[in-house]
Amino acid sequence: MFLHDPGMPNAEIISIGNEVLTGLIQDGNSRFLGRRLISLGVAVRRATVVGDDARAISQALDEALKRVDWVLITGGLGTTHDDITKPVLADYFKSGFRHDEAVAAGLERFYARRGRPVPETVLGQCEVPEKATVLHNEKGTAPGLLFEWGGKRVAALPGVPLEMEHLFEKYLVPLIAPLSGHRVKHRILHTTGVPEAGLWERVGPPDALTGRVSVASLPSHLGVRIRLSAVGESDAEVKEKLDAAEAWFRERAGDCIFAKDEETMEQVVGRLLLARGLTLAVAESCTGGLIGHRLTGVSGSSDYFLEGAVTYSNAAKAARLGVPGELLARYGAVSEQVARAMAEGIRQTAGADVGLSVTGIAGPGGGSAEKPVGLTFIGLADPAGIVCEKFLFQQDRARNKERAAQAALNLLRLRLQGAAD
Amino acid sequence: MFLHDPGMPNAEIISIGNEVLTGLIQDGNSRFLGRRLISLGVAVRRATVVGDDARAISQALDEALKRVDWVLITGGLGTTHDDITKPVLADYFKSGFRHDEAVAAGLERFYARRGRPVPETVLGQCEVPEKATVLHNEKGTAPGLLFEWGGKRVAALPGVPLEMEHLFEKYLVPLIAPLSGHRVKHRILHTTGVPEAGLWERVGPPDALTGRVSVASLPSHLGVRIRLSAVGESDAEVKEKLDAAEAWFRERAGDCIFAKDEETMEQVVGRLLLARGLTLAVAESCTGGLIGHRLTGVSGSSDYFLEGAVTYSNAAKAARLGVPGELLARYGAVSEQVARAMAEGIRQTAGADVGLSVTGIAGPGGGSAEKPVGLTFIGLADPAGIVCEKFLFQQDRARNKERAAQAALNLLRLRLQGAAD
Repeated sequence: MFLHDPGMPNAEIISIGNEVLTGLIQDGNSRFLGRRLISLGVAVRRATVVGDDARAISQALDEALKRVDWVLITGGLGTTHDDITKPVLADYFKSGFRHDEAVAAGLERFYARRGRPVPETVLGQCEVPEKATVLHNEKGTAPGLLFEWGGKRVAALPGVPLEMEHLFEKYLVPLIAPLSGHRVKHRILHTTGVPEAGLWERVGPPDALTGRVSVASLPSHLGVRIRLSAVGESDAEVKEKLDAAEAWFRERAGDCIFAKDEETMEQVVGRLLLARGLTLAVAESCTGGLIGHRLTGVSGSSDYFLEGAVTYSNAAKAARLGVPGELLARYGAVSEQVARAMAEGIRQTAGADVGLSVTGIAGPGGGSAEKPVGLTFIGLADPAGIVCEKFLFQQDRARNKERAAQAALNLLRLRLQGAAD
Repeated sequence: MFLHDPGMPNAEIISIGNEVLTGLIQDGNSRFLGRRLISLGVAVRRATVVGDDARAISQALDEALKRVDWVLITGGLGTTHDDITKPVLADYFKSGFRHDEAVAAGLERFYARRGRPVPETVLGQCEVPEKATVLHNEKGTAPGLLFEWGGKRVAALPGVPLEMEHLFEKYLVPLIAPLSGHRVKHRILHTTGVPEAGLWERVGPPDALTGRVSVASLPSHLGVRIRLSAVGESDAEVKEKLDAAEAWFRERAGDCIFAKDEETMEQVVGRLLLARGLTLAVAESCTGGLIGHRLTGVSGSSDYFLEGAVTYSNAAKAARLGVPGELLARYGAVSEQVARAMAEGIRQTAGADVGLSVTGIAGPGGGSAEKPVGLTFIGLADPAGIVCEKFLFQQDRARNKERAAQAALNLLRLRLQGAAD
């Protein structure tokens, strides 16, 4: 298991704060650091959360230093009474304090940009442990601290994610990256529309990849992500292994793979629309605007996304999209007939090349024996005609909306990709 | 600090999985357990994440059992080769295995409901450690395990959140709840529209609350949450403390408090619209559908939300909302004039009582010296007239959209609450 390859440098993460320990906020910092460290070829052995408690912090640090070479601490560097990381570390490393002029100058600049004097309360940030190297924070007021101790290193970073990430990338990555002779890289293939068991039936056991990449399967209500991980002695070797594994998967999984790594469905759809010179308009009922929200999350989407109509009421479906009242009366708003009319209606009224529509019952109310909660129709109209697909999502309101939006964007993607064949 | 009141029973949480440790998935289970345990009057001392590694798991368990009375473990109870929690615990507690007929019957029922035979691969779940009490899992295939050891207890729960929560609530809460003579409760007051420093200037130091409740301030780009925590010997005592603290805050913070505990802005807005018998329609540009998505996330929103128009292009603003072309040409789409015309336009064309509009530059492109990224106008039209507010959000595209949606809903809330005065 490459995570514990004995040749790799190793690290632990300690996250400090009652708010994390008691679940009031989610510890995204440990996740970020875990992901970055492993990508730098560092084995992450453990991640620990402790409260704002001096004994618990120094005990956790003490244990971690017995196991690993690097300890990364986040949180507790602010200026309220709960923030005790700095004095606890100074005490642990038996360090006095000194006044740091560069931190003071940084605070002056930070507040000058905001047109305010430096508040009295943050001046304590200029007092830093003598034995620490200061990591100057351009995104906030709390400097990071780096201690070296018996060949090991302990870095303390602020808990605000933006500041933590900034200091990690600027000061720690240059120190950590050269440590490992290994390169570890992941590649994620995003699939949707096929349940996990069905996907693996289609793909078969990944025996051919054994010993070259490790494979993880991560299902969610929006689809299954396949994570391929490879380790090697050079970037080229790792890339070659991942490329081969990706090709193996693509050949078997087929068109349920919609994106790779950080790319999103809405980016893929946007790229396809741009490449084909097509414009899009969307008519949403049960998704309530989520599809428009996702599409417009992509910078530059105004080049292809013309408009959305969130036609929640029947009156809006008729007035905005020209859905005939008799269709609504005869088949109901959640029906194939209405989904088709909505898709063609938004296409026509918006003057778009492609019209996409969703109508469904998100729940928990509104279902019946004939039309249960989760029943959803997705329509797509383009110059080649109108298609419609029926789904039965069986989750809660929020997830049913998310699944419907994902299925609609996926239908659009498949249609656009098919149009290229 | 009440988190470490010596009279409280105590617990640690251990989360198992390489996927968590390397940041591929977020550890929501520890967050859930931390929150529930503290609410049951249990002091959570530490939360630890270790990988799928037998030595690391038993080491973490060993350390935890030296510190606390209860250890809750999640993850690693599935049936893939990575899932080693069960054998590691059996080994740790020196337990053999036995075949459990009730687990076998449960698997039969689970798959019968899905119309499938029990797969060979999950039959291993029927083999359980002799020394464990089995926690039967009705939501999935992996049973939970409960070990008692020297007056301490170790519970292992599956990593799938739905299954973990089900077993925790059904089997562990009845055991844990009676342990504590304390009652601990939190109350969260959600504020928006006032930066953290400004909020505390307005409120002043919470000295009057010292010794009765503890106060935490949690800023995000959508607002500041104030968490009040109280401990006492009865529910009534705790409630009285929280009520007094809440009243103290409300008196000082005023109308920037929009909700309490789990309530959301969109629920508050929905409640106010229903109470006043008003209908709503929304015209969104830069938010792209997010406001509609949030409003329709509330079950029953079709009673007051008529429709949304995501008028991304100028053509759509003119055609759908009747925004005069000369306004668009003269002032630009991102202007007070256009925001006002959009609000009144959606109100009129949708036949709604209230029209809400947003137009802005989400970024990163599209800004200019005169109209920088983040410039946003929010309009509201109702029978009393049209109002408009200007904002300059200075974050990334995603956060600018989220802040604009929040500000728009907040303007609507304030207007609706003012209408009640």
